Amino acid sequence: MKIAIAQLNPTIGDLSKNTQKIVEVAQFAANENARILLTPELSLCGYPPRDLLLNPSFIKFLSIELQNLAQNLPSKLAVLVGTVTPNTDDCIKGEKPLFNSIAWLENGQVKQIFHKRLLPTYDVFDEDRYFEPGRQTNYFELLPDSQLSTPLKIGVTICEDLWNDEKFWGHKSYEHNPLEDLLNVGVDFIVNLSASPYSFGKQKIREKMIKYSSQRYQIPIIYVNQIGGNDDLIFDGNSFAVNKKSEIVLRLKAFEENIDFIDFEAKNKDFSLSKINDPIKIEEEEIWLALVLGLKDYVRKCGFSKVVLGLSGGIDSALVAAIATEALGKENVLALLMPSPFSSDHSITDAEALVKNLGINSYKLPIGDVMKSYNTLLDPLFTGTEFGVAEENIQSRIRGNLLMAIANKFGHLLLSTGNKSEMAVGYCTLYGDMNGGLAVISDVPKTRVFSLCRWLNRDGEVIPHNILIKPPSAELKPDQTDQDSLPSYEVLDEILDRLIHRHQSITQIQEAGFDSAVINKVLKLVTRAEFKRKQAPPGLKVTDRAFGTGWRMPIASYWKID
Amino acid sequence: MKIAIAQLNPTIGDLSKNTQKIVEVAQFAANENARILLTPELSLCGYPPRDLLLNPSFIKFLSIELQNLAQNLPSKLAVLVGTVTPNTDDCIKGEKPLFNSIAWLENGQVKQIFHKRLLPTYDVFDEDRYFEPGRQTNYFELLPDSQLSTPLKIGVTICEDLWNDEKFWGHKSYEHNPLEDLLNVGVDFIVNLSASPYSFGKQKIREKMIKYSSQRYQIPIIYVNQIGGNDDLIFDGNSFAVNKKSEIVLRLKAFEENIDFIDFEAKNKDFSLSKINDPIKIEEEEIWLALVLGLKDYVRKCGFSKVVLGLSGGIDSALVAAIATEALGKENVLALLMPSPFSSDHSITDAEALVKNLGINSYKLPIGDVMKSYNTLLDPLFTGTEFGVAEENIQSRIRGNLLMAIANKFGHLLLSTGNKSEMAVGYCTLYGDMNGGLAVISDVPKTRVFSLCRWLNRDGEVIPHNILIKPPSAELKPDQTDQDSLPSYEVLDEILDRLIHRHQSITQIQEAGFDSAVINKVLKLVTRAEFKRKQAPPGLKVTDRAFGTGWRMPIASYWKID
Repeated sequence: MKIAIAQLNPTIGDLSKNTQKIVEVAQFAANENARILLTPELSLCGYPPRDLLLNPSFIKFLSIELQNLAQNLPSKLAVLVGTVTPNTDDCIKGEKPLFNSIAWLENGQVKQIFHKRLLPTYDVFDEDRYFEPGRQTNYFELLPDSQLSTPLKIGVTICEDLWNDEKFWGHKSYEHNPLEDLLNVGVDFIVNLSASPYSFGKQKIREKMIKYSSQRYQIPIIYVNQIGGNDDLIFDGNSFAVNKKSEIVLRLKAFEENIDFIDFEAKNKDFSLSKINDPIKIEEEEIWLALVLGLKDYVRKCGFSKVVLGLSGGIDSALVAAIATEALGKENVLALLMPSPFSSDHSITDAEALVKNLGINSYKLPIGDVMKSYNTLLDPLFTGTEFGVAEENIQSRIRGNLLMAIANKFGHLLLSTGNKSEMAVGYCTLYGDMNGGLAVISDVPKTRVFSLCRWLNRDGEVIPHNILIKPPSAELKPDQTDQDSLPSYEVLDEILDRLIHRHQSITQIQEAGFDSAVINKVLKLVTRAEFKRKQAPPGLKVTDRAFGTGWRMPIASYWKID
Repeated sequence: MKIAIAQLNPTIGDLSKNTQKIVEVAQFAANENARILLTPELSLCGYPPRDLLLNPSFIKFLSIELQNLAQNLPSKLAVLVGTVTPNTDDCIKGEKPLFNSIAWLENGQVKQIFHKRLLPTYDVFDEDRYFEPGRQTNYFELLPDSQLSTPLKIGVTICEDLWNDEKFWGHKSYEHNPLEDLLNVGVDFIVNLSASPYSFGKQKIREKMIKYSSQRYQIPIIYVNQIGGNDDLIFDGNSFAVNKKSEIVLRLKAFEENIDFIDFEAKNKDFSLSKINDPIKIEEEEIWLALVLGLKDYVRKCGFSKVVLGLSGGIDSALVAAIATEALGKENVLALLMPSPFSSDHSITDAEALVKNLGINSYKLPIGDVMKSYNTLLDPLFTGTEFGVAEENIQSRIRGNLLMAIANKFGHLLLSTGNKSEMAVGYCTLYGDMNGGLAVISDVPKTRVFSLCRWLNRDGEVIPHNILIKPPSAELKPDQTDQDSLPSYEVLDEILDRLIHRHQSITQIQEAGFDSAVINKVLKLVTRAEFKRKQAPPGLKVTDRAFGTGWRMPIASYWKID
């Protein structure tokens, strides 16, 4: 039995376009003689629909669209589609009003509906806000080819449903284990329809976990993941299948919308070997591809085609310019060079070298005269005070204003270029360099920014060499460098990683060999910068803890970790 | 038996200060011969602690602080304190790692712990992110005065635990009803320890609901609520008690930190009449007091004492200036007047009249020359294009830059002044007039802004008359008024209310008599402005659906309601 696996890139809420996409892949799958087509979790509305789910019309139209879809699919093809269905018992039983469901469509009908059982509420997930967990064991019987064959029993799991193997994790995360329930009823294989957001190294965990479960229970599993960028979240696809021996027998490409096929052999009751795309081996390549996809989709799904960004001559904006060029094409990227009297000569020459390397458009807008006009206006108020943060920020905000003026005038989307280390300690100007519709690298620590740029240069210079070697500086006052007020980025990033990703206490970080004064300073900076992060643009998530929808800190609070 | 009710204003995360506060009220309660002191939900750490709960040190220190507190309380006083406790079974049972708990402290000990059973996940609430629901029926026995008396059985509920009376609501919201469980074990009275955020008219619902439950089950109930502003949320206090006949017998003041007492008479098994503060009867007064408290606490808890804001001569900034003056004192409010060549004469005279009425400080910074410097710089790029949104926004962003320069230079917190109608349709400039640490009236619709200002003028002019009667205008181009591109605010606010609060479809709004072209235009504007709201400062929540932590919409999405 031929199974088609479609890792689709839906646009959140665009039901007719998403439906059309499913119809097209279904037609393709039918032409290839597939018996069943698998699509990702919530493939009809895209994941995550978030508070669109609170809108009764949205739920109504999902239901209408599902019926439409059923009627427009090729005959004799079973299609599993992700959608949201109402929980009609909610008011009587005191349950949530919706289910996160998979519908089995065939021959113009909705044959069966399966509800997601394990609902994540950690990090970026809010599924308990909308959904009631399903309580049924989800499977169905499908005749492989003709009316004469023996039906296959297929277990259906939705994303998190497979993420509760207590032996693999060393602990249980949910009361139930849908996988065990499926094995108890006896299924031939299991499909897992997912919308699992990308974070660095996650595919390795997915494959390890699913191989583990497959081996533990001797069961073949197909994992189908959404791809595409939706606001801060990037979905990497990377769909794959493992056979009974827990060997990978199919792997789709990462970060690409794609369809592929696998055969379930009735004789062996197992998947036969199919096409195995290589996993991405180089860390930098993986993050690069994620960022390129995230940027491309945000721009496209917001209805833009061109972007603008400020080039400071520094490494962060250089990396963002390179990502944008890869994602959108050089003709769609406009760089503004906005030197001030504090800018070094190399800030302009380095930026110009980058512009040349990338082949993008650029324009120079020196801000000296505008700075003077602010100084003149503010002089009576500021007289007698020292040059400080206020004056530094004015420059950054002038640039932010110019960038937005260009964006507004010509319909470009502004990209902001701050990295995660800066966002953590607040080494960035709110309403200045933080301006933008998308913060492309706000989840990429500075040390990783460097390694990405070095990797980009592997076959020749993309990022000018001088940008890679000069000491980072905001150039908002004479002879300034980042290390005037921050520890080295190697130290800073390590402390931040321990604080943010590993939830370590000051004592633990001290025990790892870091200076307590430095740790305390970093912690203080991180806490104080909460108000800036609150107002930051969406930032592409590439780690397991980003400053995005999964970061929910109070601002007007007081807390010292130790 | 004398019961002390303390509606406290904790600072999120400031455990030692919050503990100190509880010790002080406990001392006061003991001096007044109270037998038991009630404090709000999570009184030890403040509500909501949000992702501070993901920090293991935070949980550890809460536990240490609770023990400290127990040892520093007066003897013979039972104290109910809200705190977070670990769920030691989480990894084995697949449960959440924490409980939202109430600890009964007495004689230096933690005598008993009760866990919240109903965990809200709607609107601003994310309790399933952190907490496992308690499954026990929560009550304890307390000897009213001496060792010889008969113990009283007291039922303990935490906030949402009482919000599931299916007869009152017409539906169940949760499977269990902790109230019924308590009645089944037979309790003398019930305490409800809450941190229930303010929204307009909510106290009426609370009293109606608790009276209903009290009457239905013939049970006296004490409701204790947190007060104070925590980021976007304002807690209004309004603690009260109802006797067996479901009569209000105690009501504390709204929006004030306070302690009061009630007696439980062993003979009648009921509360005796205590002090009943009048409820706030005037809608505008209620919202005004909420905003004043919210502003005051945000400024204070963020470590500021002074604020700055831009006065345009319009009604929104006038209202915010009045709120700030009431909250912080006139000496702590600085107003900037920043006229442009497009500003009307009255924009300055009206703003000056307001400054005089409020007695605040002000400074005038005409932006004409700075505008010219931008024009000169951008002229080569903009030549041949028409004056439009880009040019309008430049002005707003110049003002935003100046305001932040003053804020940065003198350590003031910048207040932003946009109203909810503007925030809904995006009639505001990101990085311009949206700038600020706090959006004071971003949940107040424009029509309500007018009614608040008229109410403020009830005993004499606070808001200059001309500000109240002139047509609203952003004054970013000659002879502009808001109604050039928007429907009247009466129509706009009604459509927004139906879209946002009542989740109505276009068809429903049309049936209510609104023009479909207008509805569609409004809806389009609301959807398109999502990217602006994403980057807005925290805004004080005064309605049941604000654009704050409870508003979680995708940006890069496509959805037309009908």
